[in-house]
Amino acid sequence: MSAFRSHGRGHLNGPVVVIGTGLLGTSIGLGLRGRGVPVFLSDPSPTNQAVAVDIGAGQPLGMLDGGTPELVVVAAPPDVTASVVAQALTDYPDSVVVDIASVKAAILAELQASGADMSRYVGTHPMAGREKSGPVAARGELFTSMPWVVCPGPDSSADAVQTARSLATDLGAVVSEFTADEHDQAVALVSHLPQIMSSLLASQLQGTPLHALSLAGNGLRDVTRIAASDPTLWVQILGGNAAKVVEILYGVREDLNRLIGTLEQPLAPGARLDLAQLISEGNAGQARIPGKHGGPPQAYTWLTVLVDDRPGQIARLLTEIGEVGVNVEDLRLDHSSGQNVGMVELSVLPNKHDHLIEALNDRGWRVLQ
Amino acid sequence: MSAFRSHGRGHLNGPVVVIGTGLLGTSIGLGLRGRGVPVFLSDPSPTNQAVAVDIGAGQPLGMLDGGTPELVVVAAPPDVTASVVAQALTDYPDSVVVDIASVKAAILAELQASGADMSRYVGTHPMAGREKSGPVAARGELFTSMPWVVCPGPDSSADAVQTARSLATDLGAVVSEFTADEHDQAVALVSHLPQIMSSLLASQLQGTPLHALSLAGNGLRDVTRIAASDPTLWVQILGGNAAKVVEILYGVREDLNRLIGTLEQPLAPGARLDLAQLISEGNAGQARIPGKHGGPPQAYTWLTVLVDDRPGQIARLLTEIGEVGVNVEDLRLDHSSGQNVGMVELSVLPNKHDHLIEALNDRGWRVLQ
Repeated sequence: MSAFRSHGRGHLNGPVVVIGTGLLGTSIGLGLRGRGVPVFLSDPSPTNQAVAVDIGAGQPLGMLDGGTPELVVVAAPPDVTASVVAQALTDYPDSVVVDIASVKAAILAELQASGADMSRYVGTHPMAGREKSGPVAARGELFTSMPWVVCPGPDSSADAVQTARSLATDLGAVVSEFTADEHDQAVALVSHLPQIMSSLLASQLQGTPLHALSLAGNGLRDVTRIAASDPTLWVQILGGNAAKVVEILYGVREDLNRLIGTLEQPLAPGARLDLAQLISEGNAGQARIPGKHGGPPQAYTWLTVLVDDRPGQIARLLTEIGEVGVNVEDLRLDHSSGQNVGMVELSVLPNKHDHLIEALNDRGWRVLQ
Repeated sequence: MSAFRSHGRGHLNGPVVVIGTGLLGTSIGLGLRGRGVPVFLSDPSPTNQAVAVDIGAGQPLGMLDGGTPELVVVAAPPDVTASVVAQALTDYPDSVVVDIASVKAAILAELQASGADMSRYVGTHPMAGREKSGPVAARGELFTSMPWVVCPGPDSSADAVQTARSLATDLGAVVSEFTADEHDQAVALVSHLPQIMSSLLASQLQGTPLHALSLAGNGLRDVTRIAASDPTLWVQILGGNAAKVVEILYGVREDLNRLIGTLEQPLAPGARLDLAQLISEGNAGQARIPGKHGGPPQAYTWLTVLVDDRPGQIARLLTEIGEVGVNVEDLRLDHSSGQNVGMVELSVLPNKHDHLIEALNDRGWRVLQ
């Protein structure tokens, strides 16, 4: 174990073997190649492997030719990850092996039960991704500034943990350490539950008449955005984290039952309070979500500017805001319902808000508060 | 009844009385004043009324001095709207009276039961709003290109309906006609259910540890965005549309129960299929939501560009995209977790997509697919 690696930040020298050249595995290969790290790729699909090689994510595994990788990254679907990791721990007896699946405790448990060498295994989860899948969509920059959770197992060696951290930091990610259980509990709340609520809502729209859908605003669009997710992947994620997810759903069901009871008797004493509490508790929970750059929530104030829907208008608006000397912290478009005007919502530091509104008005922009 | 008004688009000449100078009432006043229409304002709160007058939304009602308004707009909270409308129909026996509440059938029924003159009443609902409330946040442009639903009652005269439509079109909105029941059913699905699902999810975060929340991505933020809504208003909306909302919630509860059963036995035969069906049905429902400008859903393709979080970077990106000759149809920011790089997601016409990626790469931008 190199003293540098166990005490310092550490960088990967390679070689790195990536097993599974889908979106994430190929992106990892591309990112490491961009740092000059030798990468060797393998995938059950010869096509996926060939594409990943062609776009520069690494060499075919055969060319490793008996060499000893520093690290093996298993980027297989969650269902088969544990068995692929176990095989890699056997095939590469001197290498650290990590995985990148969205669920961690089930994989750790399966590996422990298999008798594999747990000192060389570290579960990880890069929280990045695109709607697209497959190697063609891969990009080396995919992990830049995204969270990457590292979950040392009870038997993981310090060296293995450092190697896992180096993978993440070399790819530009922000590393945090959780136990496998803490990880699964966290993602059950911040990732799996939102997916479920979005899908439950969106599935209600299947029979909605189109004229009713014509009234859809940004609220509906925001809540259903992630309902466009991939069923195959999510079956594995929810199946792999079922115990923690279902515990949370018991709480949701309780709240839903209470709400239904209230709406069945909306004039009963206490009905109003019940409804107010649902919304207030939602206010409270939402306010806890960190703001931009992990800072305090709601640290910025919003304003809305109307723009004609002609090319270059948003660019012009932002350029002028820059000329006024104000930084735009966040930006959202609010779509018109059929005419050529759109709303651009901007958030800025509170102490810039009024000055910016005045400056924009002076320059002829139509500003809503 | 003027022949012009009953056949043509029609415009309001005024005077218009606005009862209730909160955000919407004051915005209506401002918008009409911008067209030179005389407006007279009234509010139970002398402060709200004075503020609305001060910002130019109209004159105090006393100055109407016995004149006959062309139109009375009741912009009161949903709970009291029917009684304020009934009073206005009595006080202004030659005027059309509209309301703008978010629920329609309950108000219509209450008015019919009161024996009011239903020929001069038309329920309406402008689907616009800001997170802020009160007259200070009002803007005359609030309704520009937003949907405004007009709900002729069974006894509304054609003239009254035309006057209601003129209010909406004069304020720049896009008018559609629904019956009161159709309206309530539509908003139950596209507005009230999303609010409920967002609040149910967000309320689960109240006890979530901050380190877990640090993993929050755009998915959670999108689904919980509207959980920041105002409890007082939503108590009235949900209470006023309880029957239709609860019917939909029975369906959601059924789906939730089925999902819970599946997750309690995730290895049982058929469990995988159940999970896949939930996500697929969410896919199908979400795909029916109209795209930008009411066009076909998903008519555009997305790409993501990394930008340094320095002032002017997004402006520069958009300017260069304009120079390449491509129109940005939609834009979203994806926040980094703590470092100074952000992702800008852009949607463009599919036939521009590859050309744009190439052009941006040439200009040194880092593009994810």
